[in-house]
Amino acid sequence: MSTPPTSWVEGAAGSLFDVDNLPWGVFSLPGEEPRVGVRIGDRVLDLAPVAAAEMLDVHHVFQETSLNALMAEGRAVRESVRRWLTGLLTDETERDLVEPHLVPLTDVTMHLPVEVADYVDFYASLEHASNVGRIFRPDQEPLLPNWRHLPVGYHGRSGTVVASGTRVVRPCGQRKAPTEDAPSYGPSRRLDIEAELGFVVGSPSAMGDRVGVDAFADHVFGVVGLNDWSARDIQAWEYVPLGPFLGKSFATSISQWVTPVEALDAAWVDLPVQDPRPLDYLVSTGSTGEGPKGLDIDVEIELNGEVVSRPPYRTMYWSPAQMLAHTTVNGASLRTGDLYGSGTISGPAPDQRGSFLELSWGGTEPFGDGRTFLEDGDVVTLRYTAPGTGGGRIALGEVTGQIEPAR
Amino acid sequence: MSTPPTSWVEGAAGSLFDVDNLPWGVFSLPGEEPRVGVRIGDRVLDLAPVAAAEMLDVHHVFQETSLNALMAEGRAVRESVRRWLTGLLTDETERDLVEPHLVPLTDVTMHLPVEVADYVDFYASLEHASNVGRIFRPDQEPLLPNWRHLPVGYHGRSGTVVASGTRVVRPCGQRKAPTEDAPSYGPSRRLDIEAELGFVVGSPSAMGDRVGVDAFADHVFGVVGLNDWSARDIQAWEYVPLGPFLGKSFATSISQWVTPVEALDAAWVDLPVQDPRPLDYLVSTGSTGEGPKGLDIDVEIELNGEVVSRPPYRTMYWSPAQMLAHTTVNGASLRTGDLYGSGTISGPAPDQRGSFLELSWGGTEPFGDGRTFLEDGDVVTLRYTAPGTGGGRIALGEVTGQIEPAR
Repeated sequence: MSTPPTSWVEGAAGSLFDVDNLPWGVFSLPGEEPRVGVRIGDRVLDLAPVAAAEMLDVHHVFQETSLNALMAEGRAVRESVRRWLTGLLTDETERDLVEPHLVPLTDVTMHLPVEVADYVDFYASLEHASNVGRIFRPDQEPLLPNWRHLPVGYHGRSGTVVASGTRVVRPCGQRKAPTEDAPSYGPSRRLDIEAELGFVVGSPSAMGDRVGVDAFADHVFGVVGLNDWSARDIQAWEYVPLGPFLGKSFATSISQWVTPVEALDAAWVDLPVQDPRPLDYLVSTGSTGEGPKGLDIDVEIELNGEVVSRPPYRTMYWSPAQMLAHTTVNGASLRTGDLYGSGTISGPAPDQRGSFLELSWGGTEPFGDGRTFLEDGDVVTLRYTAPGTGGGRIALGEVTGQIEPAR
Repeated sequence: MSTPPTSWVEGAAGSLFDVDNLPWGVFSLPGEEPRVGVRIGDRVLDLAPVAAAEMLDVHHVFQETSLNALMAEGRAVRESVRRWLTGLLTDETERDLVEPHLVPLTDVTMHLPVEVADYVDFYASLEHASNVGRIFRPDQEPLLPNWRHLPVGYHGRSGTVVASGTRVVRPCGQRKAPTEDAPSYGPSRRLDIEAELGFVVGSPSAMGDRVGVDAFADHVFGVVGLNDWSARDIQAWEYVPLGPFLGKSFATSISQWVTPVEALDAAWVDLPVQDPRPLDYLVSTGSTGEGPKGLDIDVEIELNGEVVSRPPYRTMYWSPAQMLAHTTVNGASLRTGDLYGSGTISGPAPDQRGSFLELSWGGTEPFGDGRTFLEDGDVVTLRYTAPGTGGGRIALGEVTGQIEPAR
């Protein structure tokens, strides 16, 4: 086996952003329109001029203000562009062509990378669903009867999906604690995070068609970090019987960088045992006989610079491919730009929980320096790393946000 | 008081589509690109050439393939274009200019009029929510504790909003009847309609801002007929705790025509008494002291050519303005093209129910010619009329769809 290639770009070789990563983003230079770039080391490669000079068929997609046009080109183009990029960034003879178009990250502004079509959020962690059940419905079985049969999910608001770095205003709304007689209006008193992974659809599907569990990489372009900000008091009062609405719709942050699925080739792992066996449409139908896989991604939740939790994505019960197959089993179509979140990533240990609701057990057990829910001024950063195909690790896009006081 | 104007267009005067209506749509002629038109009588006025000839500032918006550009222009432009159109279509001296651009409806293909941004569905009928509660949760209070305090709503799938006339494939998915031990996969056995009204947002709002109940007409462009197709068996199994997902996401049909809010000026009526009084943000803050209003719109549900129900929109508990104010009370932004549905319109009488679930009382009391839920080949048409400002009535856009067998 040959040594995996590394990049000639200064500082990239062996870093979390070597050529085995190459996440996509949308950047701008002062006074210029946003366009598509790829990250290598601590730089952004400005692709539009390079692709035009090399007369790449699809060079126009790099001049767009979102990744959607690139993503819509489909899997073959995504893989072929990745091979071309790997060549450019590992072959020293390309340096003269490429180097003038490498921009330090500190010189650019990053934007929301994707024009989000539909946003669906799942609930795929057994530990998270069990914890929430115990906290919200203490006198009942924590898992509802459907949970082990299907990946429970619901639609969220795509218009308030924002890029990492966007400040989040504390939402107002109706809150009613169980001890109160009537709801009152005011700022949320139980503002929370949900540490998730998000999956972005590139290739669409037709209405009436089903996307099988084996077609994940044919349709999903890449992966983002995702923080599904949640106002637990608003959510608890509103959510029966039609699910979360205003408790979630004020903001969902995603990373500025989209990691292509090919960069995760070394991160696929067996899922936890699914018992009972899911219905056929949630199990592989491919000739390999391999079932849907999980992802070995480590997550860190940092609150004001201190790590407060380390959720392991590998413990998630439902796989990304199963969530996609479930979304379309009724014939619902996919569009380029569809985004789906895994739901909160919580591992079995108390310091692996992916929300403040769980870390503070419904606000009853303060954690860290006596914290229960988010306070104004708090900064939360989610970081993600995975095994790379080069033998080291890669970093997925981080997600950060600061809480502003209610207006 | 002067006589209201009527149109010189043949057949329009005194019809359901006189100048007090003027709904907007997107049409195409054979071999041509879709563009914006307005309906008068049984014709479509092809606006792009007329507006260009008259050098209307905003003439470019009529060459678009959706109404979004027009809607984004805002309330003042919408009202001013309506005045201009009324002049063109009532003043005989404009006939030579306009008549060559009137196209018979039978010559055009109509398209989805709006590029839908976010789709939210409410649950604003007291009778519908009570009926569903009694059917789904027979051993509990039919209305949940939050229902009279806020307009319950949730996000639906905007990518599967389709134009009236689109055939609907019976969805497959997981179903589990209460009498069954485990879920099974297959075509829905309880396919249903929901007769609703939909509201389309024109002018956006910024993230963090709230849109008050008095700002309805500043943000909402118009009204569509809406059928929120529902697979009750899929929905009943999946909907706890995060709400409906695949039971609804396979298709939502809206009318080909969008009725501008100005055409409903004569249709506003007092809401039913809201007890308890809602929180302030759901009550008018305007100087008029008038509270949010309901709409006096009559709905007919036709199954295979026979009217099976006549739901009255005027009995709806929550007003369109309250639903909009609630959507943004947490700072969620609005985008041009946002669509929100009223939820099923059901009146107090058994023959005023807006879904087959209620008309057949959960499938236990067949209605019409022994019907419970939808069968393959069924055609459902929803029709809507309201008082017009001209003293007669106007028709809102109808919604029709035929059920195709599961694939």
